Amino acid sequence: MNINRILMATAVAMTTFVAGCATQPDGGGNAAPAALAIQAQGSFAVGGTVLQMPGRYDNNNPTSAGQSFHGDHLYAFYQVPLNPRPLPIVMLHGAFQSARSWESTSDGREGFQTLFLRRGFPVYLVDQPRRGRAGSSTVAASVVPAPNDQLFFDQFRIGKWPKYFDNVQFDRKPETLDQFFRSVTPNTGPYDAGVISDAIVALMKQTGPAILFTHSQGGGPGWLTAIKSPNVRAVVAFEPGSGFIFPPGELPPAMPSAAGPLAPEAVSAEDFDKLTRIPIVIYYGDNFPTTPTAERGQDNWRVRLAMARIWVDTINRHGGDARLVHLPEAGIHGNTHFIMSDLNNVQIAGLVSAFLNQKKLD
Amino acid sequence: MNINRILMATAVAMTTFVAGCATQPDGGGNAAPAALAIQAQGSFAVGGTVLQMPGRYDNNNPTSAGQSFHGDHLYAFYQVPLNPRPLPIVMLHGAFQSARSWESTSDGREGFQTLFLRRGFPVYLVDQPRRGRAGSSTVAASVVPAPNDQLFFDQFRIGKWPKYFDNVQFDRKPETLDQFFRSVTPNTGPYDAGVISDAIVALMKQTGPAILFTHSQGGGPGWLTAIKSPNVRAVVAFEPGSGFIFPPGELPPAMPSAAGPLAPEAVSAEDFDKLTRIPIVIYYGDNFPTTPTAERGQDNWRVRLAMARIWVDTINRHGGDARLVHLPEAGIHGNTHFIMSDLNNVQIAGLVSAFLNQKKLD
Repeated sequence: MNINRILMATAVAMTTFVAGCATQPDGGGNAAPAALAIQAQGSFAVGGTVLQMPGRYDNNNPTSAGQSFHGDHLYAFYQVPLNPRPLPIVMLHGAFQSARSWESTSDGREGFQTLFLRRGFPVYLVDQPRRGRAGSSTVAASVVPAPNDQLFFDQFRIGKWPKYFDNVQFDRKPETLDQFFRSVTPNTGPYDAGVISDAIVALMKQTGPAILFTHSQGGGPGWLTAIKSPNVRAVVAFEPGSGFIFPPGELPPAMPSAAGPLAPEAVSAEDFDKLTRIPIVIYYGDNFPTTPTAERGQDNWRVRLAMARIWVDTINRHGGDARLVHLPEAGIHGNTHFIMSDLNNVQIAGLVSAFLNQKKLD
Repeated sequence: MNINRILMATAVAMTTFVAGCATQPDGGGNAAPAALAIQAQGSFAVGGTVLQMPGRYDNNNPTSAGQSFHGDHLYAFYQVPLNPRPLPIVMLHGAFQSARSWESTSDGREGFQTLFLRRGFPVYLVDQPRRGRAGSSTVAASVVPAPNDQLFFDQFRIGKWPKYFDNVQFDRKPETLDQFFRSVTPNTGPYDAGVISDAIVALMKQTGPAILFTHSQGGGPGWLTAIKSPNVRAVVAFEPGSGFIFPPGELPPAMPSAAGPLAPEAVSAEDFDKLTRIPIVIYYGDNFPTTPTAERGQDNWRVRLAMARIWVDTINRHGGDARLVHLPEAGIHGNTHFIMSDLNNVQIAGLVSAFLNQKKLD
């Protein structure tokens, strides 16, 4: 019996377990991915508030009198890989979505949750207050089935319904589109960027220093969180869609578009300056023009990209470190609004990894 | 250099990775738990329906006309450990809850999701249709903040508000109770046991033969799933609270209680007989009497235990294999309604493991 061969075989076997450090076949390979080695996983609520009803609670004839209600917290599911990197990543979804956005892609491949675990980061997935598993809202809402599938297909740039964009990085099997439509989940209370960012600040008190990933509508609460919490060490924003904030006197004019106007929002100079202390990168995908178009689903993103460019310039003029990557200009084509789930999401994860490495955040 | 010592050390290091097969310190130990080796994880939607609005969709002036809506599916998050046992476990939560019920306990320990992964089972956690991340309901609902904390404390048998039961298997730190209250998430559409069981049937078409764990209100849809799907190979029901179904002519009288009457429900003899083909075990916890009491939170469970006993007897009289375990009678004391998350949940997992082993389901 050859001891060296046993050792070698053992080492190979072990490698398949050390997910935190394993280099992954880059999506195209046929090799089964290595197993993930998870040191700890679980979930909890954080942030939020408590409503207290007046009166006295009667255990055997309960009414609302004297009872309390816990709401407006976020829900987080976390996983810590073996041999974790120092900074965890907190991932915040956008409108109509939940933490589901970061899990499996609609065509069933690994999303950013698992891809960044494989890259050694502890990952915290958030359902924001009043959404998903954090559904207990202190403010009432009605939930009405809203037929929006075709609008989503257009607005999230899979194509122009019912036609897919020629180069789109979205699998065309009908069941993939079905999964995409079913990833939607409604608000159970009014959207409130203040409530959401307060909850993420509370989460980051628990995690300590962390990297914040945001998607779409999550962009707005993301900037607010970075203002309020010294624990945000970087923001990676995928197609931020709302909450472009500027200091007094520097707000650009609102931008009209076929999808309605996009207006900047004001914050104090002091708050704005807090965003200049951390590295920020913003990604936008493909299939919208940079000049006005009557196509609503595309024009929506034309103004957001334009506003984000001004925003990045403003941050940097104030001494900050922000960068905007319009993927087609970087030679990466076909990305939808859900960049992190597109067919090339391993390549996108690579871009993000390179950014984190360059900023010494890994 | 001693090759044997290297091999030994390597073997020890590997053992910490083989979570699927690792024997765990039984909760009481101080040793950090071994890392989980996860072969695959992800999420998807399954089941549900599609609403189609009449009319023609206009991409650049979208209204509901011509649009569709995907709803009433369930959401599932799955993890497959390395070297998995043949049958996965599907876990269905109860009222006011989501898959969160099976994740971390309110005091931050591992819940049944991770405990059964450690025991080598693939685990599928469900958010039922119209709840949590499966919030898209085809039927409208209003979500109103309902102050129920004190009622939950009583009804889920943590104690009689504000006093904890002396022997309760629930950690008394205020932050534990806060987590418990924040595990609640509302319905986003009417509760419908048919819709829920249809979705789980669809899930089990995908998983193949599986073991179904249900909690509380999930009990009812659980029995319906077992009737509709040949893939349900066993049901483990924790404190089923609704949907006690009997064949024609064998319905016991409704049982009055301080929490309102509990009425049995009728199914066909043919459907009932389907439940006699699989092993079933039902667990109830502690701190409610078996004779009537004016204490609402406790009397609710007195009638459910009594109804479940008659149900089990009826199943067995029809040739079935059902068993009811009233934990205090088995010498296990202090369990709340959330048996799977109580301080002794590793012991409870052990009972369930023994049952699965006895029935050759592991």
